[in-house]
Amino acid sequence: MRCEIIAVGTELLMGQTTNTNARDIARELSSLGVGVYYQAVVGDNEERLADVFRLALSRADLIILTGGLGPTEDDITRETVAKVLELPLEKNKAWEEKLEKLFGHLKRPVVTMNLKQTMVPHGGKLFHNDIGTAPGICLEVEEKLIILLPGPPREMLPMFKEQVIPLLREKLQEQGNLGILQSKVLRIIGLGESAMAEMIQPLLENQDNPTLAPLAKGAEVHLRITAYGSSPEEAGELIERKAEEVRKILGDYIYGENEEDLEYAVAKLLWEKGKTLALAESCSGGLLSHRLTNIPDSSRYLLSGLVTYSNEAKINILGVNPELIASLGAVSNEVAREMASGVRRLCQADIGLSITGIAGPGGETPGKPVGLTYIALEGDRFQFSNRYEFWGNRLDVKVRATQTALNLLRLYLLGKLKAK
Amino acid sequence: MRCEIIAVGTELLMGQTTNTNARDIARELSSLGVGVYYQAVVGDNEERLADVFRLALSRADLIILTGGLGPTEDDITRETVAKVLELPLEKNKAWEEKLEKLFGHLKRPVVTMNLKQTMVPHGGKLFHNDIGTAPGICLEVEEKLIILLPGPPREMLPMFKEQVIPLLREKLQEQGNLGILQSKVLRIIGLGESAMAEMIQPLLENQDNPTLAPLAKGAEVHLRITAYGSSPEEAGELIERKAEEVRKILGDYIYGENEEDLEYAVAKLLWEKGKTLALAESCSGGLLSHRLTNIPDSSRYLLSGLVTYSNEAKINILGVNPELIASLGAVSNEVAREMASGVRRLCQADIGLSITGIAGPGGETPGKPVGLTYIALEGDRFQFSNRYEFWGNRLDVKVRATQTALNLLRLYLLGKLKAK
Repeated sequence: MRCEIIAVGTELLMGQTTNTNARDIARELSSLGVGVYYQAVVGDNEERLADVFRLALSRADLIILTGGLGPTEDDITRETVAKVLELPLEKNKAWEEKLEKLFGHLKRPVVTMNLKQTMVPHGGKLFHNDIGTAPGICLEVEEKLIILLPGPPREMLPMFKEQVIPLLREKLQEQGNLGILQSKVLRIIGLGESAMAEMIQPLLENQDNPTLAPLAKGAEVHLRITAYGSSPEEAGELIERKAEEVRKILGDYIYGENEEDLEYAVAKLLWEKGKTLALAESCSGGLLSHRLTNIPDSSRYLLSGLVTYSNEAKINILGVNPELIASLGAVSNEVAREMASGVRRLCQADIGLSITGIAGPGGETPGKPVGLTYIALEGDRFQFSNRYEFWGNRLDVKVRATQTALNLLRLYLLGKLKAK
Repeated sequence: MRCEIIAVGTELLMGQTTNTNARDIARELSSLGVGVYYQAVVGDNEERLADVFRLALSRADLIILTGGLGPTEDDITRETVAKVLELPLEKNKAWEEKLEKLFGHLKRPVVTMNLKQTMVPHGGKLFHNDIGTAPGICLEVEEKLIILLPGPPREMLPMFKEQVIPLLREKLQEQGNLGILQSKVLRIIGLGESAMAEMIQPLLENQDNPTLAPLAKGAEVHLRITAYGSSPEEAGELIERKAEEVRKILGDYIYGENEEDLEYAVAKLLWEKGKTLALAESCSGGLLSHRLTNIPDSSRYLLSGLVTYSNEAKINILGVNPELIASLGAVSNEVAREMASGVRRLCQADIGLSITGIAGPGGETPGKPVGLTYIALEGDRFQFSNRYEFWGNRLDVKVRATQTALNLLRLYLLGKLKAK
C-alpha cells in the first residue's frame, strides 16, 4: 500500500504551525508496514488543493488529508475532495443529531456554520470525534482509500490511532499485506559519519531488508536499522542479526541503542561498577555536570561538579599549583591533570574528570586557538590526559568537549582507556 | 515571488524526524513577504525526488531544498538537481581546500566520501557552512532561483538566516517587491501567559497594525509585535510606539527583546555593574552555571559554579553546618542561605547565589514534594531566600529553578529585590 499524506492549512504553509500531524501519521503507518512516499502541505486554496489531491490520486493507494474540516469558509477540504471525485455532498442525519445534542448540552443553538460539518461526500463513512465538531471521513473510490481527518492534533491523533489504524490493519490483512516495519538505532561515538560509513561500507552496499541509514546527530552518529517482516518477531530477528554484524565491525564505538543517550550509558556504567565521580570544569562551564544530573538518581555516583572558571578558583579550591598556571597557562595538559587530581582528592571520589579549554569566540592566544581543550581523568592508580581541538561556536565547543569527556569516562569504566 | 519548499529525507517520510526546517524557512519567508505555495517531503530516492523537483520547477520561482547533501551514498539531492537541470557537477577547489584544512586541523585525512561534498552543479554559488562539511548551493536557471541547504537544522537555519535571506532581500528589492513586515519580541519573566494577557487586555483588543501575539515559551512568555509599513523605518516606528505602551504596563516583567535570553540580560547587568558572581547548585546540577557560561566573556563576572550534589560536598567545600542538614534536611531555607553565603566567601565574590531542591522523579519525603526548591542570594549586606514549588519532569524543574534564580539575580542587580 502506497500512501501520501496531505496537510491542508495556510498556517502550516506560513510556518506558524509545525506539521506534527504528518510526522505522527507517518510514524504510525511505518510501524504497520505502509510506505509513505510523499508528504505535501498546501494552503486553504481550492485550486491548489485540487491539484495536489489529483496528483496524489494518480500515484497512491491511500491518501490521508488532515485539516480544513472546520466550520469556517476557509475550510474547504471536504468540498474540494468531493468535487475532484465528482461525489455529491449529502447531509449525515446522525452527525446532525449529534451536533444538536452537543450544542443543546452547551445551552447554545447549533451555529449555522457547524451544519457544514454534517455534509459528507456520497458513500463516505464517518470516524467519530469526541473532542471536536468535525467527523473524520473515509471514502473508497476505485480501490483507493481516501481519509479526511481534522487538523488539530488532539482531535486527529486519537481518531487516527483508534479508528483509522484498525481499519487499515483490516484492509492490509484482506490483501495479505499486513507487514511489520521495525527499527532500531545504534548510537555511535568517536567516529564521524563518513568514517563510520567507510568502515561498514560492505554492509551499506547491497542492502535490502533490513536497510541501514547513517545519520549525523549533533556530536555523534546514529545508524538506523529498519526491517520488514510478517511478524514483530521476524522483523526483530532480522534487525538483531544485522545489528550483530555492525557490532562486530564497530565494537566499542557503539555506546547505546534507541533513546539511550551518552550520559545514560555512562550513568549506567558508574552505577553498575559502584564508582563515584567528581568533576572539575572550566570551559564547559557546568554542561558536563548538567548532562550527568539529567539522569534520575545521579546523586548515587556524582559527588560534585566544580566549575572553577577563574584561576583563583582553580588554585584555591582544587589546589592547582599557581606556578603551573603562570608558566603553562590554565589551558594546558598539566593544569587539566591537576584539576582532575584535585577534585578527586577534595571530594574523595573514585574518579576525577576535568575539562579546561577555550570555548571562544575570544580568548585565543598564540599557539592556543579557540576550541583547544585538554581533558584529564584520574582513577585509582590511573592517569589519562589529552589535547583536543574542537570546532564550531561556543556552545558547539562545550558540547563536543563534554561529549568527548563522557566517552573517555565510558571507555575507562569499560577498562578500554589506556593511561596516557 | 512564489516559493516551494522540498524537504528530502526518508527519516522525515517515516516520521522519525519532525520537519522543522520547512516551518522555519516558511516563517522567515513570510516576514519577507514571499509566499510559500507548496511544501513537499520526499525520501532519499532519485526518481521520486526528480519528479517532485520537476513539478516545483513548473510552478515556482524560488525552490528551496533541504537535506540530502551529506557524504553518504543515500545523499542524492545535489546529484538529482544537477541531473534534472542538465548541469554537470564540477569540483569546487575552494571548498576542497577548506575541507582539507578542516580535516588536517582535526589530524584526520579527508575521507573520500566527503569529497562528494566539494562537487557543485555548473554555475552554482556556495553558501558557507561553519558547522558542517556540506556547503549550501545557489543556482539561477532561467529566472528561477534554486537553493540547496543541508538538512541538520543547526547547519541549515544559520545559513538560511545569515546568507539566503540577505540574497532574497536583494532580489526582491531589484524586483521592487520587498514586503515590509517587521516584528519585535518582548521577553517577559515572572508572569504567566494569561496573567500577562489580562494586564494588557486593552491593547490586545482592537489590534490591527501592529498586531500583538502572546506566546508561552518554556518558563517565560514572549509577546510578538508585528507591523506593516511602506518602509522599514515606518514599520519600526509603529512597533516602537506599541512597545512603549506595553512597557508602561509590564515594566520590569520585561527583561529583554528578540534573541536576548535571560542569561544574556543578567550577564549584561553583571558586566555593567562590575559585580562578580559565585554559584552553589544542588538540584539544578550545573545548569545555572552552564547557562551563564553560554554568554561569551562570562569569565569577567563568573568566578565559580560549584555543584555540591552530595551532603559531604555541601559541608566540606561550602562549609554548610552539618547539624542544619541533619535537622532540617539539605532542601531547606537555612541550607540554601548557608550555601549562598559559603560560596560567596569561598570565592570572594560580590554575589553568592544558591539552589537546593528535589528535581525528582524520586527523592520525595513527607512535606517535601518533588519540585520543592529553595533559592538564596547573598550580596553586600543583603540576604534573600525563598521557597518555590516547580512542576514538571526532572529537566522542567531544573529549567524553572535556574530561570527563577536568574530572574532574582536580575532584580537584585536592578535594585528591585527586597531582602527576605
